[in-house]
Amino acid sequence: MNEKLEDVKVRLQEIMDLYLASAVLGWDQQVYMPPGGAESRGNLLATLGKLQHVKATSDELGKLLEGLAPYAETLDPDSDDARLIKIATRDYKKATKVTTEWVGAFAEVTTIGEVKWEEAKEKADFKIFQPHLEKIVELRRQYSDFFKPYDHLYDPLLDDFEPGMKTAEVQSIFNRLRPKQVGLVKAIGARPQVEDDFLHLEYSIDAQREFGTVVATKMGFDWKRGRQDISVHPFTTAFGPGDVRTTTHFHADQVASAIFSTIHETGHALYEQGISPRLARTPLCNGASMAVHESQSRMWENIVGRSLPFWKYFYPDLQKRFSSQLGNVDLKTFYRAINKVEPSFIRTESDEATYNLHIMLRMELEIALIEGSLQVKDLPAAWNDRMKDYLGIIPSNDRLGVLQDVHWSGGMIGYFPTYALGNLVSAQLWEVVRKAIPDIESQFSQGGFDGLLEWLRANIHQHGAKFEPQELVKRVTGSTIDPQPYLRYLEAKYGEIYGL
Amino acid sequence: MNEKLEDVKVRLQEIMDLYLASAVLGWDQQVYMPPGGAESRGNLLATLGKLQHVKATSDELGKLLEGLAPYAETLDPDSDDARLIKIATRDYKKATKVTTEWVGAFAEVTTIGEVKWEEAKEKADFKIFQPHLEKIVELRRQYSDFFKPYDHLYDPLLDDFEPGMKTAEVQSIFNRLRPKQVGLVKAIGARPQVEDDFLHLEYSIDAQREFGTVVATKMGFDWKRGRQDISVHPFTTAFGPGDVRTTTHFHADQVASAIFSTIHETGHALYEQGISPRLARTPLCNGASMAVHESQSRMWENIVGRSLPFWKYFYPDLQKRFSSQLGNVDLKTFYRAINKVEPSFIRTESDEATYNLHIMLRMELEIALIEGSLQVKDLPAAWNDRMKDYLGIIPSNDRLGVLQDVHWSGGMIGYFPTYALGNLVSAQLWEVVRKAIPDIESQFSQGGFDGLLEWLRANIHQHGAKFEPQELVKRVTGSTIDPQPYLRYLEAKYGEIYGL
Repeated sequence: MNEKLEDVKVRLQEIMDLYLASAVLGWDQQVYMPPGGAESRGNLLATLGKLQHVKATSDELGKLLEGLAPYAETLDPDSDDARLIKIATRDYKKATKVTTEWVGAFAEVTTIGEVKWEEAKEKADFKIFQPHLEKIVELRRQYSDFFKPYDHLYDPLLDDFEPGMKTAEVQSIFNRLRPKQVGLVKAIGARPQVEDDFLHLEYSIDAQREFGTVVATKMGFDWKRGRQDISVHPFTTAFGPGDVRTTTHFHADQVASAIFSTIHETGHALYEQGISPRLARTPLCNGASMAVHESQSRMWENIVGRSLPFWKYFYPDLQKRFSSQLGNVDLKTFYRAINKVEPSFIRTESDEATYNLHIMLRMELEIALIEGSLQVKDLPAAWNDRMKDYLGIIPSNDRLGVLQDVHWSGGMIGYFPTYALGNLVSAQLWEVVRKAIPDIESQFSQGGFDGLLEWLRANIHQHGAKFEPQELVKRVTGSTIDPQPYLRYLEAKYGEIYGL
Repeated sequence: MNEKLEDVKVRLQEIMDLYLASAVLGWDQQVYMPPGGAESRGNLLATLGKLQHVKATSDELGKLLEGLAPYAETLDPDSDDARLIKIATRDYKKATKVTTEWVGAFAEVTTIGEVKWEEAKEKADFKIFQPHLEKIVELRRQYSDFFKPYDHLYDPLLDDFEPGMKTAEVQSIFNRLRPKQVGLVKAIGARPQVEDDFLHLEYSIDAQREFGTVVATKMGFDWKRGRQDISVHPFTTAFGPGDVRTTTHFHADQVASAIFSTIHETGHALYEQGISPRLARTPLCNGASMAVHESQSRMWENIVGRSLPFWKYFYPDLQKRFSSQLGNVDLKTFYRAINKVEPSFIRTESDEATYNLHIMLRMELEIALIEGSLQVKDLPAAWNDRMKDYLGIIPSNDRLGVLQDVHWSGGMIGYFPTYALGNLVSAQLWEVVRKAIPDIESQFSQGGFDGLLEWLRANIHQHGAKFEPQELVKRVTGSTIDPQPYLRYLEAKYGEIYGL
């Protein structure tokens, strides 16, 4: 037993506890907090964030970690301890670059920002949110400055969500992806559209919720170690592998929205519930990155949840619950409807073929905001211009446009690209899964999802954040993040549906 | 602006933020946390508690407060700043008398104690809990020793919940109260009993909840600054005046239980919502004491909520919602039923006339345990003996007796007396209210509760913890805590109901 390592572990536990306590406060803030609690909640999060920062940047921790470097060399490099020292050292180096004052200001500004964003979105009035977003952009720009020199001003922001990833890498991937994906959407647009009116009849919300629970349970969600609530913007958060919270939302006339949001968030939750309990209360008890996290949610939502075998199993149940809406709709028609490709305004509701275009738009705007080539006040117009360029449509108001996502209000500039990267990783993993479990689709059609979950647990979930995303993807698939498998997947699936 | 005072305020804010963050975690733990979250939640609360203790006992804070004493002399003694310095100095002195070793041992013993108490209660087997309660009693005795010299060994325990109050004072009050209250219960027992079967028919839980919301809203609960959820044991907690949470519980065959638990907790919540926002994030942003807090919940629950004028207004609505259960029950019969007096085993379900006897029994046993004149192993027998003396009934098992309350397992020896004191204070305040607002009951019968709330806000709520309980009660009523008004109230009310 290495004494320094034990000391480090106790210190990291304290830091993790402060982080997890903030996560509980954040969950409550989005799910149950009354509006009057906003100011106090901002103070609480600022105080916890500051204390966490002080502990995460203490000289003692730094010296201990430095002293552990030779010991780490003697360990199996894949062991928990070696990885813990590596990741903790990386995090320490990052954290010590940022001032405590910045951390406090950021927590306060984003807490108020989220409340104001909600109000702005409700009233479709960007001006309510604008001054808060200005402060947020300025703070994120200051954040990047802490990490000078960088290859790109956006690199430090991206690194918060996708450790080790560079802006240039993402841009290179997106540049290979964009023309193919735009081309596919155009080709689909020239074909006869599929019918989906029956998805927009009135569906009882109670029955939607019950069906969602059945699906999440079948996917393997452990209700003793988690729960599901309702929030404006569905999300997943974890306070350890034993307490994983998802949220969803319901709209009577959008039955698919609740179903796929539930499957998506359950995909995230399965990842968190599957992290090895050995890693609890350490910084390794987390997803490897946002993209890897998103690869899990998107695999379940799209590759599994919008597949024919999945609905071979679930459709009879759904049809029975909603016989007046779906009684006369056959499986194939339903399958085509939930895979309808159509340029639309809302990212989270968009189809697989257009989704990444929403992401690229956001990343480009974020880079322009941070660089200062775009002013916050001009953001709604810039948004609408790019929507027209990429998807050929312009939102009629800012609720359907620039105000739709929560991320910027929470200061999460640098987050969006991870969604598209997650889509790419999901397809890379899927190609490996199909080789490893040749009858996986026939398992799905009989309601068997354990095979997939076990594979994901063994190859991805259990490791938590032990491996950085590119390393993990390469270990499992033999390649770093690559757009080709996703393009192959899209072309095969939509080629069949739209007869291309 | 005094610089030392500003420094103190910033330090107190940080301490309060840690306390309030723990309160949010505690709320979630009791209301929504899945079972798998228990271990992690224990860690989070322990870490926040430790950090709070370190900050609350820091030498720097002590020196600053000491240095502020001369400045405080120059202030209006009733000003926020003078009171803040006074209360913060008191809290600092208390916190620094206790050793860190004791704090650690107490946390450990009570954490195990609560688990063992739950098991013991479920199995109605006191022996499971006995060795843990022995340790808890020993630790609480050691706690008192930190505060030597004291007038009474029980004084430091009581002081944790009722600042400034002495055991001798409480004993003197209870000695005047006990014989009168025992006599009243006996006299009632000799009269024909009132009918209340109709309160135990089946009542829809949704409809109960809707009615509770109507009542809480009418009482003045501000839903923008609070919410109500469900938990096994109803409670109220506040994260500042802008975010006050209550819980209630529902039983289909106990409609009165949900109604009065909602009114009771709303009474607590109105106190917290009414504290001046000037006091937010300071130790003054709290109730004056547990007794003063209980005076608010019990006034609303009993003096207001079980009064005829209250139900003159609300009964037609309740009757309409539950026409099959209450359609043939007239107002007077309903009023008598909700005020039925009957010796019973469970404190929380007992009526106004017997409630204080449950409390006196507990306080006497606590004092005997702490003094060592009663051994923990003899506690169940001592409990049952006193139940027979005071209420004429003996519980058939320890779940209905000595194991019913959570308090001792959490180390809260010294808490119980505050419940009875709260009842007494509620009646003292009520006598003043009736003089100040002569038509208050006619206001109630027309659904007007603003007059009472405004009076409470002006005289009690806004001050938070600025005044110690005896001082506050004397300022408002002209007397310290006195049992006579409560006895007058009981005798008038039950004399009429039972025709004494």
